[in-house]
Amino acid sequence: MKVYGDSKSGNCYKIKLLMSLLEIEHQWIDVDILAKETTTAEFLAMNPNGKIPLLALDDGRFIAESNAIINYLAAGTDLIGEDTFRYAKIQQWQFFEQYSHEPYIAVARFIAKYLGLPADRKAEYQAKQQGGHKALAVMEQQLRQSDYLVDDKLSTADIALYAYTHVAHEGGFDLKQYPAIQAWLSRIEQQPNYTAMG
Amino acid sequence: MKVYGDSKSGNCYKIKLLMSLLEIEHQWIDVDILAKETTTAEFLAMNPNGKIPLLALDDGRFIAESNAIINYLAAGTDLIGEDTFRYAKIQQWQFFEQYSHEPYIAVARFIAKYLGLPADRKAEYQAKQQGGHKALAVMEQQLRQSDYLVDDKLSTADIALYAYTHVAHEGGFDLKQYPAIQAWLSRIEQQPNYTAMG
Ligand SMILES: N[C@@H](CCC(=O)N[C@@H](CS)C(=O)NCC(=O)O)C(=O)O
Ligand SMILES: N[C@@H](CCC(=O)N[C@@H](CS)C(=O)NCC(=O)O)C(=O)O
Repeated sequence: MKVYGDSKSGNCYKIKLLMSLLEIEHQWIDVDILAKETTTAEFLAMNPNGKIPLLALDDGRFIAESNAIINYLAAGTDLIGEDTFRYAKIQQWQFFEQYSHEPYIAVARFIAKYLGLPADRKAEYQAKQQGGHKALAVMEQQLRQSDYLVDDKLSTADIALYAYTHVAHEGGFDLKQYPAIQAWLSRIEQQPNYTAMG
Repeated sequence: MKVYGDSKSGNCYKIKLLMSLLEIEHQWIDVDILAKETTTAEFLAMNPNGKIPLLALDDGRFIAESNAIINYLAAGTDLIGEDTFRYAKIQQWQFFEQYSHEPYIAVARFIAKYLGLPADRKAEYQAKQQGGHKALAVMEQQLRQSDYLVDDKLSTADIALYAYTHVAHEGGFDLKQYPAIQAWLSRIEQQPNYTAMG
């Protein structure tokens, strides 16, 4: 299998972390978004939506979207399991991640860390803070009740939400206010075969 | 089962359409967002993220996030099937919907249809057009190759993307440029037990 990605991007790091935890052999192909490598005809033929991460199977088929990829790779393992309700809750957290978490926390981090918080994006950066804290509060509430987002077992929901949460401070979000999130982050970092971002 | 929702919202309509196609009996409980009914302590106890749609199972458990709900309800039917790769592609399209389609098309429609395109949101409305057309072009390209988004069989990916695509004109998106999308919309509308929005 091949993964097209940039391991400093949280969405791509989800795949790297999952493949490390499950010891899945693969080839990592670095793609540089800023150099517009996702907009070439060659890349668009593989993913018409022009985004990384992208998984290329050995038979020539492709899967895009970080959370679809990690669920595919984890199918049949304990990270998803066999229970339909549990899988629904995993997906619930992943859609929450893409809709209510990533657009605030990842974007604020991108503006601060990669663009250096330029004056013309400061208002947007500020506007992202409230939504990001709302998402973190929702996670905190769940993680006061259970060790992981879905029951007391690690799942692909945790992988999805770990990616940008553990670097949320780089987007201006102080995690000291969220002790249950902090404990959950270290629980993930203690997993066998954990690998860091970047 | 109970569904908390507003059937004029596309995210909620996904559940209504899926339940109609599969003839799933349920009770629909109308929730008025503008009257802030999603922000009451009672509602937040059911969904801490304060959003509709929300599915309440008879045993007292809840599932949020429209696409997680339709996948849960369609588990074991042909709308999802048994193949892991097919399910990955279904999820790919659903994450695409939440990240690259809904934030443009549904938001432009909301500003135009519900807010009446007020002057102070005109710039935002205009800014949504490009992203919306990009998403529609990605769908058009797929639908020139297959009758439905994943292979030639209706799936929950189609339900997810039908919801806001069939009303995209209300957000200023002219679908005449997308003949394959138009043919796909009528294919869905011809399904037995199809039900309209609203
Ligand atoms: N919903 C997608 C988001 C992926 C995404 O936004 N990727 C960025 C890099 S982190 C990208 O490829 N951006 C290039 C572009 O959008 O043109 C996922 O979860 O995989
Ligand atoms: N990602 C969610 C989005 C749901 C959503 O945005 N619901 C809107 C109504 S369409 C809502 O409840 N808004 C109230 C709020 O966000 O406070 C889903 O797919 O279910």
